[in-house]
Amino acid sequence: MLTGMNIVVIGGDARQLEVIRKLTELDAKLSLIGFDQLDHGFTGATKEQIDELKYADISAIVLPIAGTNNEGKIETIFSNEKVVLTKEMLLQTPEHCAIYTGISNEYLDQLTTTSNRKLVQIMERDDVAIYNSIPTVEGTIMMVIQNTDFTIHNSKVAVLGFGRIGMSVARSFHSLGAMVKVGARRSEHLARIYEMGIEPFHLSLLNKEVSDIDVCINTIPHPIVTAGVISRMPAHTLIVDLATKPGGTDFRYAEKRGIKAFLAPGLPGIVAPKTAGQIVANVLSQLLIEDLQQRKVDE
Amino acid sequence: MLTGMNIVVIGGDARQLEVIRKLTELDAKLSLIGFDQLDHGFTGATKEQIDELKYADISAIVLPIAGTNNEGKIETIFSNEKVVLTKEMLLQTPEHCAIYTGISNEYLDQLTTTSNRKLVQIMERDDVAIYNSIPTVEGTIMMVIQNTDFTIHNSKVAVLGFGRIGMSVARSFHSLGAMVKVGARRSEHLARIYEMGIEPFHLSLLNKEVSDIDVCINTIPHPIVTAGVISRMPAHTLIVDLATKPGGTDFRYAEKRGIKAFLAPGLPGIVAPKTAGQIVANVLSQLLIEDLQQRKVDE
Repeated sequence: MLTGMNIVVIGGDARQLEVIRKLTELDAKLSLIGFDQLDHGFTGATKEQIDELKYADISAIVLPIAGTNNEGKIETIFSNEKVVLTKEMLLQTPEHCAIYTGISNEYLDQLTTTSNRKLVQIMERDDVAIYNSIPTVEGTIMMVIQNTDFTIHNSKVAVLGFGRIGMSVARSFHSLGAMVKVGARRSEHLARIYEMGIEPFHLSLLNKEVSDIDVCINTIPHPIVTAGVISRMPAHTLIVDLATKPGGTDFRYAEKRGIKAFLAPGLPGIVAPKTAGQIVANVLSQLLIEDLQQRKVDE
Repeated sequence: MLTGMNIVVIGGDARQLEVIRKLTELDAKLSLIGFDQLDHGFTGATKEQIDELKYADISAIVLPIAGTNNEGKIETIFSNEKVVLTKEMLLQTPEHCAIYTGISNEYLDQLTTTSNRKLVQIMERDDVAIYNSIPTVEGTIMMVIQNTDFTIHNSKVAVLGFGRIGMSVARSFHSLGAMVKVGARRSEHLARIYEMGIEPFHLSLLNKEVSDIDVCINTIPHPIVTAGVISRMPAHTLIVDLATKPGGTDFRYAEKRGIKAFLAPGLPGIVAPKTAGQIVANVLSQLLIEDLQQRKVDE
């Protein structure tokens, strides 16, 4: 439980509603900034203005998945209010006040460093990346169905990379009856792919391996689906790139060759905002509980 | 091979192109009616007008999946020509000339009966229904992802019916991590569902079983998802009805209760026209080969 904890939740989209629901269930006292147009009320949560907060009482500040922009502005889709997180605000909080965000940037890194407050990046965590791979895979399935005139079943699918997302993609397409092969470099990855009953190949052979595929799903955030690789693909191949922006695909060349290629980041929030919000809410509440327990031990 | 066979292909959509491709590969001589706006040429296939056909040479006539309408008109999306199949035409063909269609209707039944020509309904066949269940399932997956804010993974899915489509739906949703239960009546079906590691329930308990589901997928072409059943579902439940028109769902009541419900027939032609065409082409060519062999034996 989070009884006695004062948490400020600032901005965000539908996913943040799951965070608010979970934290109020756990008996935290919430101040909501940037939710004035939200009809839904939560017991234990109060809509407030950022300049009226009692900073000295705050135990934690929860930002949206996207964090802030490079000027410190926080996106608030349930409000027209302009909300900016500043050093002056953080300095008024107790020293133990931690800042939770999805991802960080230079502004946020510097802000928390100079004000000496702990910054926790939820999306950096392995567990969150693995949980998020579930909606990411479903979004990928949807995109492949929408953008081909053949079934996933019995189609030839190459998955590039066998990290937190690659393994989930490979397993799901395999279970839908696709003929999946997975390109990796580490010998333990090649072994695990084989153990799953899927065909492994070494990425050094990528040029050769793409010559008969129908779909290429990349998860590697480096230039890997190069013009040279794309030139070896059949003309009907669909490329879906799940790697962090700008992806690992030469999109310019793909377009030139007339091969459909999509960069698809942020699928969880698009195809399953409720599940995506629950993933963040579960991990975040666990972290807050641990933080609270640690502070009780310290006292 | 279909060497020496004169086949007339009349009308149809993108699926029919796969049929034409396959039959020409097998060396049949094709006359195409209703394809004058199609740019693509096929070796061994000639675009013709229906009133210029040499009926006495025709071994088989291939109609589109939809067959004819009730006035005998055949849909031709690659032509503005009005094409009607009449008794006079059929009577000019050799007695062994068979008519292949996807589905039939009163007009087509009567036409072939009175002209004493064999009518073969491709979509009636068990094998075609099972092959077609593959794109149907992928279309269903797409619709569920598009129309919910949660993942299929870990959601509660009730599949009603365990026939040719129900089994495919159950298996695929199960393999994507959904918590699937399947409602059936026959004891051997309940046994098979259990063997697949999925939860079976008897359809007489449907009222009770829907009280905690997220998604209901019906495959039974009788009124089964009644107002009474719908009234027991959680408000966020999504209903997808895959049964033949008009489906098995009380759509009027679903709308009144604010529950999303879709009748989704014809998914194969929508989500995977190429695969759907190949399914028809493979089965049709096999039937034509058997027909040709039988006639050689008879002669």
